[in-house]
Amino acid sequence: MGGNTLGDRFIVTSFGESHGRCVGSILDGCPAGLPLNESDIQPDLDLRKPGQSSITTQRKEEDKVEILSGIFNGYTTNAPICMLIWNKDSDSRPYDKIKTIPRPGHSDYPAMVKYGGYADYRGSGRFSGRLTASYVMAGAIGKKLLKYVLGIETIAYTIQIGEISCGKISFEKAKENRYNNEVRCPDPDIAEKMKESIMDVRKSGNSLGGIVECVSIGLPVGLGEPVFSSLESDLSKALFSIPAVKAIEFGSGFEGTKKTGYENNDLFIKEEGKVITLTNNSGGILGGISNGMPLTIRIGFKPAASIAKIQRTLDFSSDSLIDLQVPGRHDPCVVPRAPPIIEGIVSIVLSDHAIKAGFIPNVLRGY
Amino acid sequence: MGGNTLGDRFIVTSFGESHGRCVGSILDGCPAGLPLNESDIQPDLDLRKPGQSSITTQRKEEDKVEILSGIFNGYTTNAPICMLIWNKDSDSRPYDKIKTIPRPGHSDYPAMVKYGGYADYRGSGRFSGRLTASYVMAGAIGKKLLKYVLGIETIAYTIQIGEISCGKISFEKAKENRYNNEVRCPDPDIAEKMKESIMDVRKSGNSLGGIVECVSIGLPVGLGEPVFSSLESDLSKALFSIPAVKAIEFGSGFEGTKKTGYENNDLFIKEEGKVITLTNNSGGILGGISNGMPLTIRIGFKPAASIAKIQRTLDFSSDSLIDLQVPGRHDPCVVPRAPPIIEGIVSIVLSDHAIKAGFIPNVLRGY
Amino acid sequence: MGGNTLGDRFIVTSFGESHGRCVGSILDGCPAGLPLNESDIQPDLDLRKPGQSSITTQRKEEDKVEILSGIFNGYTTNAPICMLIWNKDSDSRPYDKIKTIPRPGHSDYPAMVKYGGYADYRGSGRFSGRLTASYVMAGAIGKKLLKYVLGIETIAYTIQIGEISCGKISFEKAKENRYNNEVRCPDPDIAEKMKESIMDVRKSGNSLGGIVECVSIGLPVGLGEPVFSSLESDLSKALFSIPAVKAIEFGSGFEGTKKTGYENNDLFIKEEGKVITLTNNSGGILGGISNGMPLTIRIGFKPAASIAKIQRTLDFSSDSLIDLQVPGRHDPCVVPRAPPIIEGIVSIVLSDHAIKAGFIPNVLRGY
Amino acid sequence: MGGNTLGDRFIVTSFGESHGRCVGSILDGCPAGLPLNESDIQPDLDLRKPGQSSITTQRKEEDKVEILSGIFNGYTTNAPICMLIWNKDSDSRPYDKIKTIPRPGHSDYPAMVKYGGYADYRGSGRFSGRLTASYVMAGAIGKKLLKYVLGIETIAYTIQIGEISCGKISFEKAKENRYNNEVRCPDPDIAEKMKESIMDVRKSGNSLGGIVECVSIGLPVGLGEPVFSSLESDLSKALFSIPAVKAIEFGSGFEGTKKTGYENNDLFIKEEGKVITLTNNSGGILGGISNGMPLTIRIGFKPAASIAKIQRTLDFSSDSLIDLQVPGRHDPCVVPRAPPIIEGIVSIVLSDHAIKAGFIPNVLRGY
Repeated sequence: MGGNTLGDRFIVTSFGESHGRCVGSILDGCPAGLPLNESDIQPDLDLRKPGQSSITTQRKEEDKVEILSGIFNGYTTNAPICMLIWNKDSDSRPYDKIKTIPRPGHSDYPAMVKYGGYADYRGSGRFSGRLTASYVMAGAIGKKLLKYVLGIETIAYTIQIGEISCGKISFEKAKENRYNNEVRCPDPDIAEKMKESIMDVRKSGNSLGGIVECVSIGLPVGLGEPVFSSLESDLSKALFSIPAVKAIEFGSGFEGTKKTGYENNDLFIKEEGKVITLTNNSGGILGGISNGMPLTIRIGFKPAASIAKIQRTLDFSSDSLIDLQVPGRHDPCVVPRAPPIIEGIVSIVLSDHAIKAGFIPNVLRGY
Repeated sequence: MGGNTLGDRFIVTSFGESHGRCVGSILDGCPAGLPLNESDIQPDLDLRKPGQSSITTQRKEEDKVEILSGIFNGYTTNAPICMLIWNKDSDSRPYDKIKTIPRPGHSDYPAMVKYGGYADYRGSGRFSGRLTASYVMAGAIGKKLLKYVLGIETIAYTIQIGEISCGKISFEKAKENRYNNEVRCPDPDIAEKMKESIMDVRKSGNSLGGIVECVSIGLPVGLGEPVFSSLESDLSKALFSIPAVKAIEFGSGFEGTKKTGYENNDLFIKEEGKVITLTNNSGGILGGISNGMPLTIRIGFKPAASIAKIQRTLDFSSDSLIDLQVPGRHDPCVVPRAPPIIEGIVSIVLSDHAIKAGFIPNVLRGY
Repeated sequence: MGGNTLGDRFIVTSFGESHGRCVGSILDGCPAGLPLNESDIQPDLDLRKPGQSSITTQRKEEDKVEILSGIFNGYTTNAPICMLIWNKDSDSRPYDKIKTIPRPGHSDYPAMVKYGGYADYRGSGRFSGRLTASYVMAGAIGKKLLKYVLGIETIAYTIQIGEISCGKISFEKAKENRYNNEVRCPDPDIAEKMKESIMDVRKSGNSLGGIVECVSIGLPVGLGEPVFSSLESDLSKALFSIPAVKAIEFGSGFEGTKKTGYENNDLFIKEEGKVITLTNNSGGILGGISNGMPLTIRIGFKPAASIAKIQRTLDFSSDSLIDLQVPGRHDPCVVPRAPPIIEGIVSIVLSDHAIKAGFIPNVLRGY
Repeated sequence: MGGNTLGDRFIVTSFGESHGRCVGSILDGCPAGLPLNESDIQPDLDLRKPGQSSITTQRKEEDKVEILSGIFNGYTTNAPICMLIWNKDSDSRPYDKIKTIPRPGHSDYPAMVKYGGYADYRGSGRFSGRLTASYVMAGAIGKKLLKYVLGIETIAYTIQIGEISCGKISFEKAKENRYNNEVRCPDPDIAEKMKESIMDVRKSGNSLGGIVECVSIGLPVGLGEPVFSSLESDLSKALFSIPAVKAIEFGSGFEGTKKTGYENNDLFIKEEGKVITLTNNSGGILGGISNGMPLTIRIGFKPAASIAKIQRTLDFSSDSLIDLQVPGRHDPCVVPRAPPIIEGIVSIVLSDHAIKAGFIPNVLRGY
């Protein structure tokens, strides 16, 4: 299986480049009988697309999805679903420079070495954040499938931008408010401060990172396969494919490493005939397998690498240090655009596992 | 590919149970021509094995590796290498209880549901930390291969136990000292404190978690495949297969999410004809691909779930809450046993990527 | 890996339907640095496309390939290459009937059961011979890659139509003449008779089958992996994905089962410093691995199932036998359209194995 | 996935060498809840093992299977099942010769080149027919699983040895009689002649090939995935991993290529409420998917390559032609030992597809 493909049964292959003709994905293995058309996918793409606000890149793209295959009479057929968005507003001129001056913090240098100069460097090519649109398309189908068959819901939202973070937020509040502001933080006051801090760094030609939290509810007990395909294993593999992600934790995560077992263990009780745990330090995963509690993940994004601020770095053509001001249009902080991507990626992995574990049949009948 | 298998070209399949006949692994795809025998594997197994000190489980196992296939005249042949250790000191009696009283923080409950009661629950079966011996065996071969062909070295060591942590440690110091004490922390003073804290919680029937750091040096530029098979993706997938791991970060990780791009970007310079970066906040990975700088990972372990301290939890047979004192022999903190496992797992993933990226040929000639 | 994907390193995913918007494929894993554009692919598509002569279906399709990704400045980049042809002349009206009267010899019945009525049955949907265009597109790239790097050439040609067959043909003669006539038989006299026999069955509303032979020269010694990925294993897997293929043999094949070992063994000699065999009953494969001699395969096609002649078969809507005259436009014999498909499929498998065995690097430099 | 592994969900990895310590396999993905112990596997191994009669190799091996993992309380647990037989009667002395004089018709030459001299050549190492014991072990579990859950039965039997062949044989007769004689041909008179012909060639230091037919009944409609994972694709891939197999056909196969569509199409009727076809030229597969009729395959074996008769072939050490008399103990005809191997291989592939298509759940309850 190539690096551009994810999943065993719900299988996503990403294709396209930032400044090529299009960005797309093929989803193979979606069960037959799911009602589906472009309108199931477009809303998530709209939440991800650039140029929506003052705190994102000013590249303007309509990002209108087209489904090329795999749907018949309004239903999935189990055949591969090829989907894409066309690139329309790419401006490749600023990228000539990075052929010899790799941007600090960017893939330019290793990509140049690895691909012997053949890689498409325009707009970062295959390394562009724009590629995540392909995850969003397939993810939207996973999201619908999980909701349709199992009632699973996945939400992601910003909980930290730079030094500013918000407190604990309930699932319901987060679900309702996460897309009500430009930074995708469910707490409106904190969101305002986050936005200001992004506007500030933008002005100074700098950038910020942050943390997104993702919660899924409604998981059955039993998703995840021992040993190398644990739920944490497959979720982290998928999430680290999002550019700028450098850290991931489940449940109490790094904080939990400081607790004792007595504090961190979640005790079982029975409530309304259902086994639950009193706390959820496990983040809904025990032994790599879902335990029915909310799946809780936190994903750390480094600050965006492309900054206008002058950096003293190597010019490979002359082997001398120069002052680089990264050209092009860039996000001062990628975190606000990440929630729909993360919801999509997580939905892809959960769909894959739900099919593998036998919770979703090959043909959907009678839903 | 099943969940018990890892890798595309350097492929490890784990088998065996904690209280079954053996624990083993098959390594398929190791290039032909690597000199290899049991003595290349045994030292790492010895570092992992139980019963070595007062702060680990008292189960006594020799853990002597046997190679059953794939070696001829002292060299690998590219055929599958089957290796195993026999289980000798298992005591399954205490595990009858967990059939109806799943241990808090453990895989018992989801495993019971997922496998319909057929899972081998003795000593946690396939969910036991003992399974990691299979990673260590294959990992030792990966370690040797990487050293032999590319000069890559990987070391892992404890940097935090509970609330006690050590400061920054140089590669050389860590390499030299990490296995000099029972907690595997290269700083001897901190190590002493860590050991005391583990002895303390053991006495109170409780347990601790912690953090292991792993550094690899000598990586060529170009390991890692876009997009879903980035180096972070594949390393995290493999590392999360170690029981109790709940958090992973690369380079500046979660701390880096608070920095600005200007602070976090690593500037390129040339030193002795080689491109390096002034800092290493990226942890040696840019755009999912190695950039030649030290690969730096931190892995967070939750406190061990099996504790003697009484926990009030559900008895599934009576649907009532009872006081559970987990029986059996357990580690009060798994972190000290983790470094050889992590070195092995990381070596497996790097071997896989080095072969995929063309840095290691199918047949080793003239080394 | 899903059923729509083939290969480990040179990986083809087929998508599209006969009467949907398009038929396409994604090729992942093509080394960077191969000069490539649409004109490398179009000639093979032209040889496959329908409506070219009086002995093929009268559906008219331009089948003009578009490359959507993976090429930059005229070279491959190692990123996924998405290619497609649009469907323009589909006529789905005749297919309403097969919803309740599955055509004898066709996929209609098992597809209906397997996909619970959701499969796209228009023009046979995913089971259409038209899907093979996706193999031809990826295959043309494989063909170019093998020629460019290793000098490998693959040719396929008709050697039997119904009862009419031609004698042994040299590689050079076959290479030169195979596409000089409509049936793709390198012997012009036999070709004429084959064509007549096809025109005859067409008139009577019937159909014919036949055999295609495929020969590849220039293979290095060492393609093929033990044990389940032998060259015969992977070639046959790929070739049986062509609709109507029901038999495959290598070298002396079924005829060889009647020989003695002394007769069938190919003796080694050295000629011009190269090890060759005096005969080639092995078809160029020993122990599943190429031995440097010409790879020789024969592929048997059943007669086309869609015939105008009346067949007495089951009407599922009434559970009664009826007289079916299969509607739509169909090939009276698919064999003449098979050679470019087989050349493509074989080139895909050989490319995959050549990369796996280390004969083609990830980046092509200096060719 | 490596070449030593087969399957997506019911996954077999073969390991071991002919003259190494053992031959074994790991089966991953077997559903939990199948009653299983060594006695389910031993009978098929006994049917395959050498030294049983005057017409097989005189190597004596007990071939007693040991299960090392994956079984608990007499049931499968879904964990990997590691099984092996130990090698006891290997005599490696005669194989020194083939280091420089590759046997005609054998893997020696390409293996030597491919593995740079590191391959284990003793008893043909990984290329030995003895490796098929690993298929038989996993196959026996597949066979039991298919029978237990779906009532599927698979039988294989010799229908041709050299020039001697038997006529059409009913499933019931073949099932009853196939193992009643040493050549595994259900027709006792023909079997006698076959045996004589093998004894004859043995005397003259020569060898014979032949054909095995395999029939499976009880398949549900719907096994097989489009397009590259058709039932024919996956069966042929697996069957070509058996040494000496050079030809495979389904249903009317090569003979069918001479028929017209009208003759070859199988007409649908309904009998006792079940859709069947009047004839079975399709061999039970339409469009790559099972149609519920008996699966029918014919597998062609070349004559055994290792013969005592003198062959004039190349000595690589001197680059001169010499007279080679192949040393060691060998089968004069491998066909009589093939039926249990083929039954196993086919059962593995059908199990894999039955799980993929949803006919066998992950946990077997209430059978």
